[in-house]
Amino acid sequence: MTNAADRRQALLAEYENIKSRQLNLDLTRGKPATAQLDLSNALDGILNGDYRCADGTDARNYGGGLGIPEARQFAADYLETHPSQVMVGGNSSLQIMYQYVANAMLNGLQGAESAWQNEAKGSERIKFLCPAPGYDRHFSICEALNIEMIPVRMNEQGPNMDEVEQLLSQDPLIKGIWCVPKYANPNGVVYADEVVDRFARLGTIAGANFRIMWDNAYAEHHLSDEPPQLANLLELSDKYGTLDNAIVIGSTSKITFAGAGMAFVASSEANIKQFAEYLGISTIGPDKVNQLRHVRFLKDMTGLRALMQEHRKILQPKFELVLKHLREGLSGKTINNKALGSWTEPAGGYFILFDTQPGLAGRVVELCAAAGVKLTPAGSTWPYKKDPANTNIRLAPSFPSLKEIDEAMQVFVLCVELATLEASESAGN
Amino acid sequence: MTNAADRRQALLAEYENIKSRQLNLDLTRGKPATAQLDLSNALDGILNGDYRCADGTDARNYGGGLGIPEARQFAADYLETHPSQVMVGGNSSLQIMYQYVANAMLNGLQGAESAWQNEAKGSERIKFLCPAPGYDRHFSICEALNIEMIPVRMNEQGPNMDEVEQLLSQDPLIKGIWCVPKYANPNGVVYADEVVDRFARLGTIAGANFRIMWDNAYAEHHLSDEPPQLANLLELSDKYGTLDNAIVIGSTSKITFAGAGMAFVASSEANIKQFAEYLGISTIGPDKVNQLRHVRFLKDMTGLRALMQEHRKILQPKFELVLKHLREGLSGKTINNKALGSWTEPAGGYFILFDTQPGLAGRVVELCAAAGVKLTPAGSTWPYKKDPANTNIRLAPSFPSLKEIDEAMQVFVLCVELATLEASESAGN
Repeated sequence: MTNAADRRQALLAEYENIKSRQLNLDLTRGKPATAQLDLSNALDGILNGDYRCADGTDARNYGGGLGIPEARQFAADYLETHPSQVMVGGNSSLQIMYQYVANAMLNGLQGAESAWQNEAKGSERIKFLCPAPGYDRHFSICEALNIEMIPVRMNEQGPNMDEVEQLLSQDPLIKGIWCVPKYANPNGVVYADEVVDRFARLGTIAGANFRIMWDNAYAEHHLSDEPPQLANLLELSDKYGTLDNAIVIGSTSKITFAGAGMAFVASSEANIKQFAEYLGISTIGPDKVNQLRHVRFLKDMTGLRALMQEHRKILQPKFELVLKHLREGLSGKTINNKALGSWTEPAGGYFILFDTQPGLAGRVVELCAAAGVKLTPAGSTWPYKKDPANTNIRLAPSFPSLKEIDEAMQVFVLCVELATLEASESAGN
Repeated sequence: MTNAADRRQALLAEYENIKSRQLNLDLTRGKPATAQLDLSNALDGILNGDYRCADGTDARNYGGGLGIPEARQFAADYLETHPSQVMVGGNSSLQIMYQYVANAMLNGLQGAESAWQNEAKGSERIKFLCPAPGYDRHFSICEALNIEMIPVRMNEQGPNMDEVEQLLSQDPLIKGIWCVPKYANPNGVVYADEVVDRFARLGTIAGANFRIMWDNAYAEHHLSDEPPQLANLLELSDKYGTLDNAIVIGSTSKITFAGAGMAFVASSEANIKQFAEYLGISTIGPDKVNQLRHVRFLKDMTGLRALMQEHRKILQPKFELVLKHLREGLSGKTINNKALGSWTEPAGGYFILFDTQPGLAGRVVELCAAAGVKLTPAGSTWPYKKDPANTNIRLAPSFPSLKEIDEAMQVFVLCVELATLEASESAGN
């Protein structure tokens, strides 16, 4: 006990000392660093006055709701499918996802009668399964469209598929599920082959109006030499006759410019056509000039993968530095015979997920904030921002410099120990 | 009679002769010509590696839902208002309009209770006033969002404001009105000062939840040396305390690249903030790199106006050629003592509106199509594509070459006379 109290005093003194330095550090969002953005600076100017697409289309003029042919080919290679099953849009895959779900909700995917909102009678609500922890902005879309969210447990293979299948077989109001199947945001999981196979068969349980929102945001964002393979949902779905159920999304946001890239979506040809027709009401079409720039710059998957290696050179030391602090500051330490926390060591993606002892995530975030280190608010990675165990903290090391990460992680590790000691003392241990 | 029959025989022979030439001409859409697009080719490459905005923001990264400061300033100058009352978005003003109306319909402009859809009980529908003829894509937005359209008569000063005010005072389900207030699509009208003043007071009749969708698409698109001035709706609305009712929209689509420009919207600061928050759910933000390109390229209103003079040099001869054919082919000619048609001679914008004798627009379009000249389908410029008098034909001379316009207008003039003679004969005259 005295040891713990002494330790807490020492940590508090250190904490007050840090506070006096008035740090201003930020580990909140998965934004690329400036050096990463610089890798694609050649985008602007690459067209060199030649705005003509492969099929003769003038990229500068109106039209072309499905995207230019070379961008569709590029996106098809990226998403491992055929160009006819791909639409290339504007700069935001989030927008594509919002528009897709809003269209399903309000207008229906197979004519007006199929609108999801028609299936919810009286006070009923349409529902989505939300493997959690997950991506906060997926959940915001559900909230905005009045879709109820049901959290589903994540394990190291992906979502708990027994739970998913059981929920779907019981409740026809469940119309969708959000996924980040590779290097998942935030826990870095890559869905196992068996899990993807079971996903491809969900349509046979849930019916024609159900959609898997497969946000493959980090498909090529590796942090290891031998990246894990994700099974091909579109190919498997095609095999099982459920291609309409699969909506696969990607973008170049974390490949070229985060806010000025191109986003794409793949599904059955009929689905893509229906979606493009819907969008044809609400926009004059995507920015085809920027699509052309992207294809001229990235060229093909070989070009893209070479660029991703450059990203990795910048990102990997940052991830390693975070992990070094966690290992050196927390590994092997216990309070009340329990580890101070656990964390992921992702093979790719943009996040490290840290788990505190139960109930402490909010307090750690609070302590860090008071010491000038901003973290994603505890709970953000859960539907309705409610992490039931209050343990998840998402660390995003991409944007800050190594020096900033170094300072921020010293604070973080200290705050984890301090919060755990506080809790242990107040529990009378 | 014999004269008319002879004339018809002669025209038919000429028509058959034209048909045998298998023309493939198109006067349908208001697309800029290639030479116009070429005027802005310097856009790509203009950043020269400098992606830093005026306030230090990196244009390449995420964020900035309201647009970059210099683009907001530019758009404010263009829309004659303050940057704080402006949001700059992506490449499509149509998308801004769709999103604005959808947001009002589903989520409400002043909290969830204010959603338009809540005001329509049972089989009632929300309604929009649609000065007609008007822009077909405005009307498509209403159709997609299940908003009933009420056509309002247009005269040479703008919409018939007695009718507008009367309808609004009678029917609280009318929540909006579509306008193209300058060089209106398709009839070229510039709303008179008195009309704009009455628009600015509509909010006092229609209430806080009513919106004027003021699509000022052709604000700087002059075809004359002394362009008419449009009164400032935002300034007048501010004076009358109705700024929330005014939604003013513009874009660079017909200034730089039609499909790769930037679009903007202005209203009260509170309105713009609410709209940006709504969009914050559904997108990561607009393409700020393209905004930066645009401001660096256009610089300011002086730069923009110089560019518009270059556009005018390309467009004006095309408009003049259309008018020459109409004058030489149709002026002074009558059948049954009635003129063969009438047309606008716009001082700006992208269209000439032709009116046939009653009931003949569809037939003229059909005859032209069979002779290889594509025109906007008769009726397109009306809600539900129904022109009650079947007289309006929209001519869009911007995209085709002078040679193509010359050929197409020969056919058009011939088809107008032929259709009128046909109708006269079948009426037994």
